[in-house]
Amino acid sequence: MNSRIIEKRIKAARRLLKKKKINCLIVTKPANVTYTTGFLGDDSWAVITGRAVYLLTDSRYTEQAQSECPHCRIIQRTGPMAEAVAKLIKKLKSVQTVTVEKSTSLADFEALKREVKPRLKSVANIIETLRSIKEASEVAAIKAAARVAAQALKKARRYIKPGITENELVGMLDFQIRKLGAVNSFETIVAFGPNASRPHHQPGNRKLKKNDTVLIDFGVRYKSYCCDLTRCFVVGKATAFYKKVYDAVRQAQTAAIKMIKPGVETRQVDAAAREVIAAYDLPVYGHGTGHGLGLEVHEEPVISAESKGKLQAGMVFTIEPGVYIPGKLGLRLEDDVLVTQKGFEILTRGSYKRVEDIVIL
Amino acid sequence: MNSRIIEKRIKAARRLLKKKKINCLIVTKPANVTYTTGFLGDDSWAVITGRAVYLLTDSRYTEQAQSECPHCRIIQRTGPMAEAVAKLIKKLKSVQTVTVEKSTSLADFEALKREVKPRLKSVANIIETLRSIKEASEVAAIKAAARVAAQALKKARRYIKPGITENELVGMLDFQIRKLGAVNSFETIVAFGPNASRPHHQPGNRKLKKNDTVLIDFGVRYKSYCCDLTRCFVVGKATAFYKKVYDAVRQAQTAAIKMIKPGVETRQVDAAAREVIAAYDLPVYGHGTGHGLGLEVHEEPVISAESKGKLQAGMVFTIEPGVYIPGKLGLRLEDDVLVTQKGFEILTRGSYKRVEDIVIL
Repeated sequence: MNSRIIEKRIKAARRLLKKKKINCLIVTKPANVTYTTGFLGDDSWAVITGRAVYLLTDSRYTEQAQSECPHCRIIQRTGPMAEAVAKLIKKLKSVQTVTVEKSTSLADFEALKREVKPRLKSVANIIETLRSIKEASEVAAIKAAARVAAQALKKARRYIKPGITENELVGMLDFQIRKLGAVNSFETIVAFGPNASRPHHQPGNRKLKKNDTVLIDFGVRYKSYCCDLTRCFVVGKATAFYKKVYDAVRQAQTAAIKMIKPGVETRQVDAAAREVIAAYDLPVYGHGTGHGLGLEVHEEPVISAESKGKLQAGMVFTIEPGVYIPGKLGLRLEDDVLVTQKGFEILTRGSYKRVEDIVIL
Repeated sequence: MNSRIIEKRIKAARRLLKKKKINCLIVTKPANVTYTTGFLGDDSWAVITGRAVYLLTDSRYTEQAQSECPHCRIIQRTGPMAEAVAKLIKKLKSVQTVTVEKSTSLADFEALKREVKPRLKSVANIIETLRSIKEASEVAAIKAAARVAAQALKKARRYIKPGITENELVGMLDFQIRKLGAVNSFETIVAFGPNASRPHHQPGNRKLKKNDTVLIDFGVRYKSYCCDLTRCFVVGKATAFYKKVYDAVRQAQTAAIKMIKPGVETRQVDAAAREVIAAYDLPVYGHGTGHGLGLEVHEEPVISAESKGKLQAGMVFTIEPGVYIPGKLGLRLEDDVLVTQKGFEILTRGSYKRVEDIVIL
């Protein structure tokens, strides 16, 4: 990763830490370690002070860390992580308070508490807050992931024919993603017919039948960044009811997306989608309307009725309303949207699709 | 899952809790929730008391919980998890101490602390300890996963030909796993030639060449249980050095496996493998020799130089020594082994393979 970008992030992190009077942060969440150091391996923590960024790793990753993190001081640990952190902090005379991320497990926190001498505190959402505003290179990376997803789906779409099972279609789509040099950002969901009424359906051996509907919820991780999208298809002829539901969900999604610009409250975006579904007299979905994504497929911000906060330029999140009627149908449409200075940009598709475009004959 | 099995597990958990004078355990780790309730969904916690097992879930999973957990009291929460737990515990007059798993995040622990009135404590490895000894049905499930893995590899093996990329081979193997109704238990590693010298190699677009070597480290999750294996192949002619390394690693693996029986210390098993590699004057691997597996692909016990404890009948773990020479080669052999009353049973293969058997012409 570009060294200048990492330096900018560290400066921003230090500003946030200073506001909270913290002069040392132990970063334990893998995506936060990657964000603040550029390191792509596992089992490593970062320590950010006012003067330096340390990466604590082990012999498996030392070589990788040296090439990925030129601006970090690499510490190769041999014993437990907590001991290595304590040893480092003992040497840092300027550090008065040591703080660890609240996402850390209780077991790790307690091990640190035993080892680290200055009073150990915890803090939430320092790096997560920075990550919620994407830099241009991050937006480009998400767009690249979205392009891979579109290509993979285009190739897999040919296999959507009566007789294929949900599992086989998952396998074929994932195969195309791999062929394009990417990986899944989460386990692909494929649901045929009424199976789609469960938002978290586990794909099985149900075979696709003539006039069945297909829901595909999948994502790609490409060069560390994730995308996440849901597409629906009809194999044959769409029923009048399915068409109605499709129009409702598409309008709900469009209504939410059109709300997006800096300053708007996240819960207003959520409400815009729900209102359309309710106006169609269809059951309003139980899940949130969207979630941020980037290095992780679920990150800040959350777009839901309970979420607080306002949109800021640079945020990227999904908008994914749906309609679920057990035993009958499930339909969700999901795209990834960037908040721009003046409004929004959809990162996962170009234009509105009519129901005719989702029919596969 | 069989109700009788769950009841037996809960009884065993209560015995362990009683020893530690705990009369209420909040189970937050997903695999531990599955183990103690049979529930296969996400975002749900279990609360075990001397009288009952409660499953706290939300509307997305209530129906699923009712069918999967007939012996649990299902609580559908609408607000935050900590509030729902506190509300439940207030009603339980018999509960004096409330304990939560140490794998819980600090953020969740602090939220619980604010809400739960009796003094909140934490405890490690209650359910993990139970899980480390597999029941017959769990061993059968791991064997079934191993059969799926063998079938998938057999089919994917046909595609191991000069010209295929690492990513394509991953995609093809994963596709076969999906076709068999299973999923990956972790991201498949395929490494060609010297790429295999990194134990955690990230597959890329390197094309297979004539006389290249292939390392495949993959696993299958089938009916909730995991297997994990590593196989090596030579496409064409094996060099004398590769043959020597192969023999060393196979002998190291065999030496470790032959040690396995109840009462043996885990670090003795680790040492047996390392001694063989060292005797061959080859570099001794930096990773552990093995890890337990079951509902998770990494669980108790750990087989390493630092690990403490003795083998017990019913444990299942990998044995996976390797040799890594940067720029030259990497070779690891990994199988899953059950500790039986008298010794061991290999769950992932039948017999020793000579180097000739791994040559693909």
